[in-house]
Amino acid sequence: MKKDLLRIQDLTKTELLGILDDAQAFASDYQDWQFPERKLIANLFFEPSTRTHYSFASAEHQLNCRVENFTAAGSSVEKGESLYDTVKTFESIGFDAVVIRHKQDEYFKELKNIKIPILNAGDGKGNHPTQCLLDLLTIRQEFGRFEGIKLAVIGDVLHSRVAHSIKEAMLILGGETRFGGPLEWMDDPSQCASVDELVSWGDVVMMLRVQHERHGEKMKMSEAEYLEAYGLTKKRCAMMKPHAIIMHPAPVNRGVEIDSDLVECEKSRIFKQMENGVLVRKAVLKRAFGYSFHEGGKAS
Amino acid sequence: MKKDLLRIQDLTKTELLGILDDAQAFASDYQDWQFPERKLIANLFFEPSTRTHYSFASAEHQLNCRVENFTAAGSSVEKGESLYDTVKTFESIGFDAVVIRHKQDEYFKELKNIKIPILNAGDGKGNHPTQCLLDLLTIRQEFGRFEGIKLAVIGDVLHSRVAHSIKEAMLILGGETRFGGPLEWMDDPSQCASVDELVSWGDVVMMLRVQHERHGEKMKMSEAEYLEAYGLTKKRCAMMKPHAIIMHPAPVNRGVEIDSDLVECEKSRIFKQMENGVLVRKAVLKRAFGYSFHEGGKAS
Amino acid sequence: MKKDLLRIQDLTKTELLGILDDAQAFASDYQDWQFPERKLIANLFFEPSTRTHYSFASAEHQLNCRVENFTAAGSSVEKGESLYDTVKTFESIGFDAVVIRHKQDEYFKELKNIKIPILNAGDGKGNHPTQCLLDLLTIRQEFGRFEGIKLAVIGDVLHSRVAHSIKEAMLILGGETRFGGPLEWMDDPSQCASVDELVSWGDVVMMLRVQHERHGEKMKMSEAEYLEAYGLTKKRCAMMKPHAIIMHPAPVNRGVEIDSDLVECEKSRIFKQMENGVLVRKAVLKRAFGYSFHEGGKAS
Repeated sequence: MKKDLLRIQDLTKTELLGILDDAQAFASDYQDWQFPERKLIANLFFEPSTRTHYSFASAEHQLNCRVENFTAAGSSVEKGESLYDTVKTFESIGFDAVVIRHKQDEYFKELKNIKIPILNAGDGKGNHPTQCLLDLLTIRQEFGRFEGIKLAVIGDVLHSRVAHSIKEAMLILGGETRFGGPLEWMDDPSQCASVDELVSWGDVVMMLRVQHERHGEKMKMSEAEYLEAYGLTKKRCAMMKPHAIIMHPAPVNRGVEIDSDLVECEKSRIFKQMENGVLVRKAVLKRAFGYSFHEGGKAS
Repeated sequence: MKKDLLRIQDLTKTELLGILDDAQAFASDYQDWQFPERKLIANLFFEPSTRTHYSFASAEHQLNCRVENFTAAGSSVEKGESLYDTVKTFESIGFDAVVIRHKQDEYFKELKNIKIPILNAGDGKGNHPTQCLLDLLTIRQEFGRFEGIKLAVIGDVLHSRVAHSIKEAMLILGGETRFGGPLEWMDDPSQCASVDELVSWGDVVMMLRVQHERHGEKMKMSEAEYLEAYGLTKKRCAMMKPHAIIMHPAPVNRGVEIDSDLVECEKSRIFKQMENGVLVRKAVLKRAFGYSFHEGGKAS
Repeated sequence: MKKDLLRIQDLTKTELLGILDDAQAFASDYQDWQFPERKLIANLFFEPSTRTHYSFASAEHQLNCRVENFTAAGSSVEKGESLYDTVKTFESIGFDAVVIRHKQDEYFKELKNIKIPILNAGDGKGNHPTQCLLDLLTIRQEFGRFEGIKLAVIGDVLHSRVAHSIKEAMLILGGETRFGGPLEWMDDPSQCASVDELVSWGDVVMMLRVQHERHGEKMKMSEAEYLEAYGLTKKRCAMMKPHAIIMHPAPVNRGVEIDSDLVECEKSRIFKQMENGVLVRKAVLKRAFGYSFHEGGKAS
């Protein structure tokens, strides 16, 4: 019955669309749906996060869960306890599910023997499935479909948890994805398009965050130079198609990957993505316990 | 409908007295009043706090809110996210209000576009409106009025979030305030009264905290010397009027601004102030959403 | 009416068995028992902890409490506030009970004037009564009695919060306890038995954690050498009686005090202890407020 959410590629197309349908339902007919029994959820964040962490917490509260937040600081992780033993502990002491962000790629491979659902809130530079789902939901809300949608992803593709998952997902769903940005941040520099070309090509222009905190060395250019070379300037924004939208996983470096004035412009869906993040997380929490909308809760 | 609480001086006299009335009502007829709908509240504390933080949390729980606590450590603030973007995120992901403490003076000027209520839990060395309100409530409980009440404020007036607000508020309400303490900690040394004079003058003797953590350099005198020169010693306590009371915003440096034995003496209202802090915070939370006691909740 | 839980030796034999009976009842007939009124509980953890902290939190949530977690970082403790003033603050602002872990031995001696129940979650290297209770519960579940039960405790007895309390408790309850491990970690080296002898003697073999974080200097031997000399190897496990069980307070140093493969072996009750920890904590919370199962809650 338990259903983990670990990687986008573990989902069938049907499952993926089912999650998006559920997320959308939480915005309309099933706004008030809650678990018939109160669930106790632990959010285990071994890396800093605001959006993902509190978005999960918000979703959990809305579903009438009891919520505990755990950070490595002030825990037995400081005494050298392994991730497996930490998670097994939460299972043993009565938690019904865990949400985990951890810096180790695919940390969940160590967690095969855990019996409660695991929801991946980001692993290393690998996966971030709820981010991918909220991006997809935002795109579908805008265009009503994925078939033929052109997605331009610009920036630090190499270190992005988002770029590869969304490309795979879009492929399955009938969309097309192209990457651009500094060559040293491309997996495949031969496939790298120019930023000017991409912004006028895309139905969706997704700017990635310059992850200062992941780069040991500083960028070799100033922030203003990066914006000019690879960022979404007002000039580039004017080159976008009339119906095209701007996305960004946030937190935004204003004035680096995007002009600060564009963050809340008419084309921007950046804060809408955050709203959608809560819907998606409600959907994957509901799925984790095998519920449908017609069982239990206010919607029953 | 949303009502921020940012600065005491933003309140009319009527509003100010209305909040005090509501706070008092929470101690008597409306103890069990709760929001008819569960609210989701984020306490964003960018500076250390025990009393204010957990007092807000206690108030929120008593009002049947769902509570999430956020500290800058372990958040995207560590990735350089701006305060505006952090608060906008909490709005976007479904929080109904935010309580904020931040070291920047009047940080809320950046937050004009936020649509959910903002409750100021202390900014820089500027404002701390709920502290001021709880002080006023404590005074009114004691004397039944503000007219003619003499308030002596002694200590680090210059860096105090409390001293200036309470002086302004007392002026509006008909009371009188005088300051004393080390000359270098006065805004206006020419108005500085002697400590001995103040303790025998005041109906309320409010000792301020020596804020070691805000002073780059150490005090030039020992703690015992400070107590003797500017603190509330037992000798000075004996000089107080029979009906006069002792107040302190806490945390107390025992043996510095006040003799440790006086912290819980008969004249002291220090822990009573903390109790009142919860009442005041319930009142401003209720106000933030535009409720009156006769709408919703158990009191309806 | 308030009942603190500070030290095992403060309990009479009747009280101790009563708590174990209540804990067991929470596993069977009274699983759903809750406080008739919602209690507001503060977990004050001044030292790192995962198991104890979140086990208390789980117990509190299951009893329908409202839970706030406090750590010294980000609090007024950073401004030098005393433990007494911190706890008095939580009492003043409406908390109904506090759970405290603190590095100072018998910190609670300072807290005589606190009017709300105090539950000790570990003090210095002195007491950890809920750990002792969960160990006892685990033993009684296994053997149905304490009389004649042989408990072997192996490892860092000197710095253990568990070893001395459980020895005293077992003595009162009719069991027998022997210690083994490195001589420099014994209170009384003349009473130290060999590890080989102990593992074949005990009905319960309790391995203690090598507390790297409490030892200023490093162990003088490698981890593999410690395991071979004093740890529970597979070879030693094979020497245990057929019905004997393995216990450990956790977090486990896998491959140091116990072979990693034994942590979840058939004889191990290590994760069962954690489960029991929640039952015990529910029992002491219930006791703190003087409830019996037939008052209030779902079980009434």
